[in-house]
Amino acid sequence: MRILILGGDGYLGWPQSLYLSSKGHDIVIFDNLMRRHFDLERGFDSLMPIYTLHERVAAWKEVSGRQIQFCIGDTMDYEALAAIFRDFQPEAVVHFAEQRSAPYSMIDRKHAVFTQTNNVVGTLNVLYAMKEFSPDCHLVKLGTMGEYGTPNIDIEEGFIEIHHKGRSDVLPFPKQPGSFYHLSKTYDSHNIMFCCKIWGLRATDLNQGVVYGVETGETMQDARLATRFDYDQIYGTALNRFCAQATVDYPLTVYGKGQQIRGYINLRDTIRCIELAITSPPGEGEYRVFNQITEQFSLLELAEMVLRESRRFGLEVQVKHLPNPRVEAERHYYNAAHTKLIDLGLEPHLLDEAVLESLIGLAIKHRERIDRNLIMPTVNWRMTKNEISQADS
Amino acid sequence: MRILILGGDGYLGWPQSLYLSSKGHDIVIFDNLMRRHFDLERGFDSLMPIYTLHERVAAWKEVSGRQIQFCIGDTMDYEALAAIFRDFQPEAVVHFAEQRSAPYSMIDRKHAVFTQTNNVVGTLNVLYAMKEFSPDCHLVKLGTMGEYGTPNIDIEEGFIEIHHKGRSDVLPFPKQPGSFYHLSKTYDSHNIMFCCKIWGLRATDLNQGVVYGVETGETMQDARLATRFDYDQIYGTALNRFCAQATVDYPLTVYGKGQQIRGYINLRDTIRCIELAITSPPGEGEYRVFNQITEQFSLLELAEMVLRESRRFGLEVQVKHLPNPRVEAERHYYNAAHTKLIDLGLEPHLLDEAVLESLIGLAIKHRERIDRNLIMPTVNWRMTKNEISQADS
Repeated sequence: MRILILGGDGYLGWPQSLYLSSKGHDIVIFDNLMRRHFDLERGFDSLMPIYTLHERVAAWKEVSGRQIQFCIGDTMDYEALAAIFRDFQPEAVVHFAEQRSAPYSMIDRKHAVFTQTNNVVGTLNVLYAMKEFSPDCHLVKLGTMGEYGTPNIDIEEGFIEIHHKGRSDVLPFPKQPGSFYHLSKTYDSHNIMFCCKIWGLRATDLNQGVVYGVETGETMQDARLATRFDYDQIYGTALNRFCAQATVDYPLTVYGKGQQIRGYINLRDTIRCIELAITSPPGEGEYRVFNQITEQFSLLELAEMVLRESRRFGLEVQVKHLPNPRVEAERHYYNAAHTKLIDLGLEPHLLDEAVLESLIGLAIKHRERIDRNLIMPTVNWRMTKNEISQADS
Repeated sequence: MRILILGGDGYLGWPQSLYLSSKGHDIVIFDNLMRRHFDLERGFDSLMPIYTLHERVAAWKEVSGRQIQFCIGDTMDYEALAAIFRDFQPEAVVHFAEQRSAPYSMIDRKHAVFTQTNNVVGTLNVLYAMKEFSPDCHLVKLGTMGEYGTPNIDIEEGFIEIHHKGRSDVLPFPKQPGSFYHLSKTYDSHNIMFCCKIWGLRATDLNQGVVYGVETGETMQDARLATRFDYDQIYGTALNRFCAQATVDYPLTVYGKGQQIRGYINLRDTIRCIELAITSPPGEGEYRVFNQITEQFSLLELAEMVLRESRRFGLEVQVKHLPNPRVEAERHYYNAAHTKLIDLGLEPHLLDEAVLESLIGLAIKHRERIDRNLIMPTVNWRMTKNEISQADS
C-alpha cells in the first residue's frame, strides 16, 4: 500500500515508517525537521543519539534492503504538501506532523499561537489536499486522550449516547482539554469530522495515551535506526524523566500529589494500532475514533515502578513532590474505554519489569549524555515566561 | 464603565457602541475595517448606505453630545491590541471582531484558513492581553447557536448534566458546528473556558442566534448612524435576503426543503443582552454561556412571513426552492433553552408584523441599490471554488 507519513522523522513517525516499510508498504516521509530544530534552539537532545534523516534512511536500506523516500517540507506549505498527494497518490496518510508538547504550548503567547496555528492549519491543509488529489485516501490522525480531560463519567471512544429529557442522541464526547496543545488536537478532531461529513473523506482519529518505550523490532537492528528518548521538561514524558533521573541520582520529580491518572501505551503497540487502522479502513464519509491506550496508571504508581526497578540496578532513588506547574485535578475519577483496537486484533505489550529494565538500562548506558539542567519544570500553566522571570528576580 | 468594543464598526458592533454610549458608558472602538474591505473586494454593499467610521462618530457627537473614541487596528496585531488594554484599562470588552460569515469560510481553502486563523488567534490575543493588562476585565464574546448543530436532544446553555453508566457530570454541551466559521467559534469557546480556568479570567460566551433588524433607538436618530443591511449570498441572512428579493420581484430563494429550524433574535434584544451581561458580570475564573435567542423558526416559516407581509405592500412574491448549497439536516428536532438572559431581565421584541413592515419598507426605499447578481448562492459546502468553476464550464 502507498502510505504517506507526515512527521515521519519524529519519535513515533520514524519507528512507524520502519515498521510499515518492513511489512512491504511503499513509504514516503514528509517532515519539516521541526523537532530537531526545537532541540537546536533550546540546547536539548535525545538521550540516545539520533542520526540524520539521510543516515537513517540509508541505514534502513542497508539493513533491510528497503527504500524509504522522504521529502523535507511543511504541512503549513500547501503547495508542497499538495504536490506529494498529487504525485504519490497515497492510499493512507498517517499524520504525526504536529507540535506535540503541552508545556511547549504553555510557554507564552507566541508558543500558544504557534501550536494552534501550526496544528490546525496544517491539518486543514491535509484535508484540502486529500479532497483535491486523493479523495479515497484514508487519514490516520494522531489525537490525544488529553482531549477528554478527566470527566467524572467513563470516557467512551469519541462518541457517547446521551439521554436527556426523554430524548436521546449519539453525540461527540464532550472535551475538556488541559493545554493549548491539547485544545489544538480537539480542534483538529472537529475539522476532520466535519470534512468527512461534507466531502465524504474517511478518517481514523486515534486518541492516544502517553507512549513509552523506544525499542521496536526495527529500531533495534542498528544504532543508526534509534528513535528519540526525551527526558527533558518540555518533551520528556514522566516515565522517561523518571528513568533518566534514577540513573543520575536525582529525585523522581512528581508534579503535585501524583494521583493524576492517565492512559498509557507501549511504542510497539502504537505502531501496531496504526497498522490495524490502515488495514481496516473506514468507509466513505466515515469518521471513527479509537482510544489508543492499553493501561492506566497514576503518576505516583509510575514513580514507584521506576523506584522498584531502579533498586534492582542498585540505584538508591527518592521521590520528590513538586508544586504542580499544571492546572489539573489531582484527585479524579478516570476510566477510559479502549476496546475498539483490541477488537481489530491488538495484543497489548504491558508496562512490565522487562520494559522498565530496558528503559533504565538505556538510561544507564547513555548516562553521560543526561543534562540535569533540562529536568526541572520552568513552564507554569498559571504564568507566562515573563511573569516567571519577574517572580524569580 | 470603560467598555472596549472590538469590531465596533460592524453590523452589531456599531449599534452596540451607540447604545452603550447613550447609557453613559465610556466607549472605545477597535476595528480593522475588514468588513468594509470585503465589500470593496467583492463589489458588495449594504442596502442602506453606511457612512465612514469618522462620519459616524462625528454624527453621534452632533446628535448626542457624546464622544466615542476609536482606533483602527487588528486583533491579530498583538502589540496594537495590548496597547489598548494597557492604556484604556477596560472593565468590559465586547468581542465582535471576527470573520462572521459561514459561506465566506466555505469558499475555498484560503478562506477557511483565514477564518479559523483570524478568529482563533485574534481571540487568543484578546485573552493574553486581558491576562497581561486587565485581568479583572470581563470578556463578553459573541459565539453562535451554530456551535451546537442540530442534536436530537434539547440544547442547553453551554453545559449539560450527563448520566452515564451509574455516574454523572456537568460537561460542555457536545458541539457539531456546520461550517469552518462555526467551527472557529467552537474553538474560541474552548480557549476562553480554558483561560478562565487557568488564569481566573471572567467571561460570558453568548451563543447568538441569527440577528435580524437594523433599527435601534440610536441608529434611527440620523441616517449617518445607520447600521448594515446585508442581503447578499455571503453576509446576508435569509430574512434580509427575502425582504430584498420581495421588493425586486425575485422569488424568495429557500435552500432545500426549508425545514431547517434556527434560533433568532431582534437587533434591539441583542444589544440589550450584551448590556445585561456587562452589568451582571461573572465572578473571577467564571466562564458562563447564554443562548442569545428569543424565538425559533424554520426557513419556510420565515419565507411565508415575508410573503404575507409583502402582499400588504402589494408585492406579488413566489417561493423558490434551490438545491441546498450547505450540508445540513433539513428535517430535524430543535429545541434550544434560552432562559438565562430572560432571568437577567431581557424583555424580548419578537418577529412581528411591525418588524417585517419596517424591513420591507427599508428594502423598498432603497430598492434601486439592490444588486440582483449578489443573491444566488455560489458557495457550495461540497465543492470548492475551483470545482464549481470546472462544473460550470
